[in-house]
Amino acid sequence: MSGSIALVGIGPGSHDHMTHRARAVIAEADVVVGYVTYIKLVADLLEGKEVIRKGMTEELDRAVHALERAREGKKVALISSGDAGVYGMAGPTYEVLFQAGWTPESDVSVEVVPGASAINACAALVGAPLTHDFCSISLSDLLTPWPVIARRLDAVAASDFVVALYNPKSGRRTQQIVQAQALFLRHRRPDTPVAVVKSAYRKRERVEFTTLAHMSECEIGMLTTVLIGNSHTFVRHGLMVTPRGYANKYDLDEGGSTREGEKAGRSLSSGLLGWMAQLRADHAEGIGVATLAQQHGLPPDYIEAVLSAAVDEPETTTPTEETEG
Amino acid sequence: MSGSIALVGIGPGSHDHMTHRARAVIAEADVVVGYVTYIKLVADLLEGKEVIRKGMTEELDRAVHALERAREGKKVALISSGDAGVYGMAGPTYEVLFQAGWTPESDVSVEVVPGASAINACAALVGAPLTHDFCSISLSDLLTPWPVIARRLDAVAASDFVVALYNPKSGRRTQQIVQAQALFLRHRRPDTPVAVVKSAYRKRERVEFTTLAHMSECEIGMLTTVLIGNSHTFVRHGLMVTPRGYANKYDLDEGGSTREGEKAGRSLSSGLLGWMAQLRADHAEGIGVATLAQQHGLPPDYIEAVLSAAVDEPETTTPTEETEG
Repeated sequence: MSGSIALVGIGPGSHDHMTHRARAVIAEADVVVGYVTYIKLVADLLEGKEVIRKGMTEELDRAVHALERAREGKKVALISSGDAGVYGMAGPTYEVLFQAGWTPESDVSVEVVPGASAINACAALVGAPLTHDFCSISLSDLLTPWPVIARRLDAVAASDFVVALYNPKSGRRTQQIVQAQALFLRHRRPDTPVAVVKSAYRKRERVEFTTLAHMSECEIGMLTTVLIGNSHTFVRHGLMVTPRGYANKYDLDEGGSTREGEKAGRSLSSGLLGWMAQLRADHAEGIGVATLAQQHGLPPDYIEAVLSAAVDEPETTTPTEETEG
Repeated sequence: MSGSIALVGIGPGSHDHMTHRARAVIAEADVVVGYVTYIKLVADLLEGKEVIRKGMTEELDRAVHALERAREGKKVALISSGDAGVYGMAGPTYEVLFQAGWTPESDVSVEVVPGASAINACAALVGAPLTHDFCSISLSDLLTPWPVIARRLDAVAASDFVVALYNPKSGRRTQQIVQAQALFLRHRRPDTPVAVVKSAYRKRERVEFTTLAHMSECEIGMLTTVLIGNSHTFVRHGLMVTPRGYANKYDLDEGGSTREGEKAGRSLSSGLLGWMAQLRADHAEGIGVATLAQQHGLPPDYIEAVLSAAVDEPETTTPTEETEG
């Protein structure tokens, strides 16, 4: 008698944005376990099933219940909103399973079913803010010491990531968003575009555009995700867009032709190899490591390592491709 | 005669992990535009449609074609793998639309359909690595200068994010992953867990676990995503898991009871307010700003701002909740 646990991400909330696999796994389950709000989002799939509704802070409990039922031979679907792996139930569940002596060879099989995370859903609603490097930070200090969170905010503000803030504020936690704003304003322009997205693809969906200078004045709650643009992000016609960097290489006004000195499908002249060559040339002309480090905003020992590395780099003829999303 | 453009993320590749909306939009389209590899992934949905297959570097071209057809009144689906917003076609398309004078009030309506991104798919396959703050960095220097990429790698390595590297390597770009490894090793332990995931949920799917010290020796190509754990990430029974932080507050061996001095649903004693109180106490006892800044790994002017801020913080009785995924 072998049971199973499926850790299912149901997407932002509307059935339209749930994957086929997520829906199938819930439909086939004997038992569905989840936070009461998420259970409501899949209410129409639950007929004839045992449903275990849990409160927000009872996450370990949800995992314990899931394991209990799976050990009885039941098919259990443990649901998270968004993606089950992103601040979701996948992590805590594996921790509980390991503690209980579970292994992948045991009677209970485990599957994580990926879904569109809140960051994907919110981004789709506001335009295309995630076209360049981004990160996701939870402002909840219920399980993470504040200095860890603050160091992360400081680091990504300085290095120009697009940033999604999860759990930005709650009834008790009101100052974290103010602190995040202060840390960002040390590095970013006050007019950096910010989107405040509430309940993406659910009933009370609301999108508000603001700026870094004003973001803490917005209505922000437990169901809100805050998206902060990078230094190139702009808002036009009510859409927040981060350019991918084409402006460095292609001339959009000229119908997308390649800029002088750059080749389609090749690294930028300021790409790794071009940059290394320039660095060596500058150093050979007498510019010191400390100055180069400061110029490029990189640690001196990294600059030194680059300068002392062997030079020859093979150029193969394999066509260069990029993966997406 | 009004046409439409849907920017569709088809998920990792298998139909199982496509959303209902993504499938519906492709099914209803008159014209489907995309990179030839992604077109193949949805081949069974294309009967009777005009299909425009494009090469990898012809992204602006794809957007231009989509707009052209939409202006003729056609329903166009422009497909990306993963999520259309994450290094996908949503950004370049909006840029092309704006250049062409398009506005949301014009004849052509535009929708972004979110999907499970490569980071979500890869994470689901390897276990639960994204339970804590993470970021996504593309190592492609085709459109981004290397120093920008290097600064980001350095920043997130230092501040202990889980990191997904997109476009880690191609035929021509072989040294970027070596440089990324070097930058990470300045901050992270050599035995930091790394998962190298190729073609998640597609035919040639392959998962390899390694460590930061060895990651550049792995087989890495254009269809690979590299996941680097944070300082708490571990691999057990072939599963890569990042704890959410429960160990700080809950005692898993004791059935999940709360640790001494901590309360369920409340900030950690080292959370923002507790940390601020401690900082003030330490400062009152004579510990200087510079020392405190160093102790906590935060900028001195931020420490100063915290110390000089007004103290009273309301404790409301609203129950604290966390959002997921």
